[in-house]
Amino acid sequence: MKAIRVHRLVGPEGLQVDDLPEPTPGPGEVAVRVRAVSLNFRDLMMIKGQYNPRLSLPFVPLSDGAGEVVALGKGVTRWKAGDRVAAAFMPAWVDGEPTETKAQSALGGGGNGMLAETVVLHEDGLVRIPGHLTFEEAATLPCAGVTAWHAVVTEGKITAGQSVLVQGTGGVSVFALQFARLCGARVIATSSSDDKLRRAADLGASDGVNYKTTPEWDNAVLGLTGREGVDLVVEVGGAGTLTRSLRAAKFGGRVALIGVLSGGSAEIAIFPILMKNLRVQGIFVGSVAMFEAMNRAIDVHKLRPVVDRVFPFEQAAEALTYMESGSHFGKLVVQV
Amino acid sequence: MKAIRVHRLVGPEGLQVDDLPEPTPGPGEVAVRVRAVSLNFRDLMMIKGQYNPRLSLPFVPLSDGAGEVVALGKGVTRWKAGDRVAAAFMPAWVDGEPTETKAQSALGGGGNGMLAETVVLHEDGLVRIPGHLTFEEAATLPCAGVTAWHAVVTEGKITAGQSVLVQGTGGVSVFALQFARLCGARVIATSSSDDKLRRAADLGASDGVNYKTTPEWDNAVLGLTGREGVDLVVEVGGAGTLTRSLRAAKFGGRVALIGVLSGGSAEIAIFPILMKNLRVQGIFVGSVAMFEAMNRAIDVHKLRPVVDRVFPFEQAAEALTYMESGSHFGKLVVQV
Amino acid sequence: MKAIRVHRLVGPEGLQVDDLPEPTPGPGEVAVRVRAVSLNFRDLMMIKGQYNPRLSLPFVPLSDGAGEVVALGKGVTRWKAGDRVAAAFMPAWVDGEPTETKAQSALGGGGNGMLAETVVLHEDGLVRIPGHLTFEEAATLPCAGVTAWHAVVTEGKITAGQSVLVQGTGGVSVFALQFARLCGARVIATSSSDDKLRRAADLGASDGVNYKTTPEWDNAVLGLTGREGVDLVVEVGGAGTLTRSLRAAKFGGRVALIGVLSGGSAEIAIFPILMKNLRVQGIFVGSVAMFEAMNRAIDVHKLRPVVDRVFPFEQAAEALTYMESGSHFGKLVVQV
Amino acid sequence: MKAIRVHRLVGPEGLQVDDLPEPTPGPGEVAVRVRAVSLNFRDLMMIKGQYNPRLSLPFVPLSDGAGEVVALGKGVTRWKAGDRVAAAFMPAWVDGEPTETKAQSALGGGGNGMLAETVVLHEDGLVRIPGHLTFEEAATLPCAGVTAWHAVVTEGKITAGQSVLVQGTGGVSVFALQFARLCGARVIATSSSDDKLRRAADLGASDGVNYKTTPEWDNAVLGLTGREGVDLVVEVGGAGTLTRSLRAAKFGGRVALIGVLSGGSAEIAIFPILMKNLRVQGIFVGSVAMFEAMNRAIDVHKLRPVVDRVFPFEQAAEALTYMESGSHFGKLVVQV
Repeated sequence: MKAIRVHRLVGPEGLQVDDLPEPTPGPGEVAVRVRAVSLNFRDLMMIKGQYNPRLSLPFVPLSDGAGEVVALGKGVTRWKAGDRVAAAFMPAWVDGEPTETKAQSALGGGGNGMLAETVVLHEDGLVRIPGHLTFEEAATLPCAGVTAWHAVVTEGKITAGQSVLVQGTGGVSVFALQFARLCGARVIATSSSDDKLRRAADLGASDGVNYKTTPEWDNAVLGLTGREGVDLVVEVGGAGTLTRSLRAAKFGGRVALIGVLSGGSAEIAIFPILMKNLRVQGIFVGSVAMFEAMNRAIDVHKLRPVVDRVFPFEQAAEALTYMESGSHFGKLVVQV
Repeated sequence: MKAIRVHRLVGPEGLQVDDLPEPTPGPGEVAVRVRAVSLNFRDLMMIKGQYNPRLSLPFVPLSDGAGEVVALGKGVTRWKAGDRVAAAFMPAWVDGEPTETKAQSALGGGGNGMLAETVVLHEDGLVRIPGHLTFEEAATLPCAGVTAWHAVVTEGKITAGQSVLVQGTGGVSVFALQFARLCGARVIATSSSDDKLRRAADLGASDGVNYKTTPEWDNAVLGLTGREGVDLVVEVGGAGTLTRSLRAAKFGGRVALIGVLSGGSAEIAIFPILMKNLRVQGIFVGSVAMFEAMNRAIDVHKLRPVVDRVFPFEQAAEALTYMESGSHFGKLVVQV
Repeated sequence: MKAIRVHRLVGPEGLQVDDLPEPTPGPGEVAVRVRAVSLNFRDLMMIKGQYNPRLSLPFVPLSDGAGEVVALGKGVTRWKAGDRVAAAFMPAWVDGEPTETKAQSALGGGGNGMLAETVVLHEDGLVRIPGHLTFEEAATLPCAGVTAWHAVVTEGKITAGQSVLVQGTGGVSVFALQFARLCGARVIATSSSDDKLRRAADLGASDGVNYKTTPEWDNAVLGLTGREGVDLVVEVGGAGTLTRSLRAAKFGGRVALIGVLSGGSAEIAIFPILMKNLRVQGIFVGSVAMFEAMNRAIDVHKLRPVVDRVFPFEQAAEALTYMESGSHFGKLVVQV
Repeated sequence: MKAIRVHRLVGPEGLQVDDLPEPTPGPGEVAVRVRAVSLNFRDLMMIKGQYNPRLSLPFVPLSDGAGEVVALGKGVTRWKAGDRVAAAFMPAWVDGEPTETKAQSALGGGGNGMLAETVVLHEDGLVRIPGHLTFEEAATLPCAGVTAWHAVVTEGKITAGQSVLVQGTGGVSVFALQFARLCGARVIATSSSDDKLRRAADLGASDGVNYKTTPEWDNAVLGLTGREGVDLVVEVGGAGTLTRSLRAAKFGGRVALIGVLSGGSAEIAIFPILMKNLRVQGIFVGSVAMFEAMNRAIDVHKLRPVVDRVFPFEQAAEALTYMESGSHFGKLVVQV
């Protein structure tokens, strides 16, 4: 089978198509014929060595993929050949609280990734794909979808009538917008582009703030909420935007800390956390159980993930380069 | 001012229009010119003496009403004349856990009720009416609306993709249907009438079960959910329907126990509660804080309560008789 | 190896010692040399056919046991030979919400039970025994211990200063008393024996009510709590005691519904559930994750389960007969 | 009556004893004869103008006090003369979620403080003192006690067997140690003094880390917990210690962010928040309802707050100076 592997930690140009032996599933495992994978910002950091500079090379990158079950190991009871499945980002985090062991099962981080024609995974780390989704759409769910669900629903506990702020229009933010709307919340979106804000409005955002033309976007958010602030900020910027996010949250509000697009370390004024009884909740993707709960919602509402663009297998490197430019809205997908 | 009072605990015919002195607000109190009141099944039980046979007569019945602030007592800071408000069902349950003292503040149960031109209430027991609602619509919220919100949102914690069963099409059940839909849930409704099931479908119910033609409606619900059962049953029937409701709930599911339309006491098989780890949660209306949270949702979605019929003030007794017939869908309102 | 099996569903006399081939662990499984088992009331119902009259005979009864790991199947990573372990009551309920599939993995109910020298179980269904416990003590934990933990801690969320009512002095009730004390709660115990109430006081109960001499024990509990009622009732009696338990709970309080010692079905007055916003939470043992959390508490406090009496292997039938008499305080254990 | 007021924002030397007219309670208010007040680090910041440099002078400082009810305003129903009470830190935060309005009712921050012979407060902002406490002990509860309760119990949801890290031996930390022990948790304490660690051990801490001799105390905490980390860090240091606190917390753990002793702003590495799914929960004291729940626990366990030293009224300035030195263990009290 063919797989794309990282041979050097230098970014997209370190990728190479390799011919590898077809893997066979051991006890409790399932072989999946991958049909589509999606990209996350983490993948870019990974192939540049920014996440972990000591990764043993070569390795198959990318954590998110969907496909069909093609072979079963001994004792597998949950699946049969032909089942349409997606792999959980951390196949060992089935349910309950996170642990270090569960976190270390994350795909695409040195161990097995999804950018291959066939992958072998434990049966408990797979979820069934909602029937109305294509493989391309389903491939967007494992990291970005589950992260947004975890932030908005599992931990955010957003209910009808509450307000959610989403930052930018990357994969997680667009899912967070969609899920917050499913839960009946009012959504305010920020972006550097009025055009993207219009597309966010089409997905149900009631208000948009252009942070290029309105650098004090936290103040704009307060203005849009009667000076009260929002119930939940889905923070993907990281250290660089956190101080403003804390200001944009209401008393007793929440900030879901997800990404580090603008930096992992910064001078942060923590006073508002205390004075407003804020909760800053770190979100590192989520469990198989969250994935299944999300899929039920996607199924009931026949919700469609927003796919910005689909690339052929050979252009995986181009897809990563395109993501780096930041001009996408929603998710980037590679067909396998 | 005019008020209708109960002079004998014999049902609607015990009501009589009386001329009473205009009440004046004490410290912390507000006088409200009532514009509309709504009926609940509890009111019927109350005026028949079924709730409490020792009520001191005469008394102003009905718990739910909306109107305008007309006068302020000393020290009132939250309201001004002209504000459009509704009274909380239990004005003393402002927030937090219920207590006996808070419960005893329930309106229309012997103390002051709302079926009067002017009522005086503590300022903390009032909530602002969403701007898009008429007084008739707002008058439906205090008991039926808040009960449904408490059951579906506060305690039910229903999220997108979950399933909710509502029984019949009375006031609480229709609100529960509407709120469950706002939260992204799938709703199954039961009714004795196919016509009412069609109206439930118009409000967003995905499925309906006619319990007249399908007496084993619990089995039908299991069939509609892949034999799994629903996440939440909004149980308004009481003892007579509880055994089937327990069967219709999934493992780890919830039953919100609200009403006793079919009886307050019965032979109940409790085994499913244990074996399926069910939660049976009693719901007695709710707090001012829940009312305000509900109003935010109503406001964000411009949701309109379902008013079956509006009666003039003089026909309050006829309205109660009509409710007893059970032919309504949603709420009955009396203009004041 | 030797095992005791049920050959007829007639009670203790239907048990018989059999010689069976030594079982070998498959992939992901572990063989455990059982050293002690404990009895639960469910076992008695099981061997009489009261739980399920269609059990296929013969079968190994009893759900609770502890022992040593003696052999590992392929791919087992969590255990090594010599590890001291107990089996979870439902080995398939590792974490998260209960499901029908998880519930069906309960031991001693027709499939494999623990009253045998060697048993084979999936590695995820085992937990490590706290170091200070004997096998006899550890064998008491899987059903009675985890049930009490689930009721008091996981669902009861009892905190310091709250009040808990435990009924009688059987296995679950004594554990509930111990765990409620660990969490800083005040505990009121009921019993038919003043002597047992004295022993409950030794374990930390602040008050005791003899329900023989005080049949209106609910009223006594209200008297002990300033007429307010307790935060949590650990209800093991079932339908026959539930009505009084509902009266003994405070507004917004909880009743953990666990046992059916006094019946599974009865005329129940549900009115207090509504009017007091009570929560009746069904408890069917619990998950491996709850077991592990409980063990941490047992370990930190060096808590010792209360073992009433230990029987030799050959007297398993006598142990069951003794349990039926109801004269025990805490748990009955059989050495293997 | 006598009161000590701040006339200049320069620290303890800005205080002065003044003779003021006896205040009288308005509707819903209660006059309290203050018998003892306690000091918090916030008071020191307040009188130096570090909290709010624009406070209008003069004002009565200090937020925490206890005394007796001496006069009732119109309509007061909850109290009678002679009742022993403490004032809530934010009298307007009775229950439920925090809001800006509730937060602005904090005592000792420019409006009325407690360092006076008589104060007037709304009846809903008072709580009854546990019977076994002296006024000096009760005066320690409103800020430090409730903050620790909020952190450990209300938000921390600490249960038996979990682990809590407390930093230093100031008022909040000692209460957190005591409450965590009541809840059955294992407690690890840090301090710059081995003597104070011994005293922490006397109160139930199982382990102590001297952060002077072990600057990498986070690593020491990991060592004491099998490299796993603690369930909850009670963080009073603020920005300067937060990075280590994040390292000392386990996957899925919590950090209660309370104080800013070591700074309100700093370079913080937020990566562990994401990767370990940590929750950083800001704690700003708490509500009247939390105060009452805490008092129930204090009452059930006859717990005694740790009072380091009691000063006479005239030495309030000396008490503040002593607190600044940081040599205390527990709380400092001034008799009135």
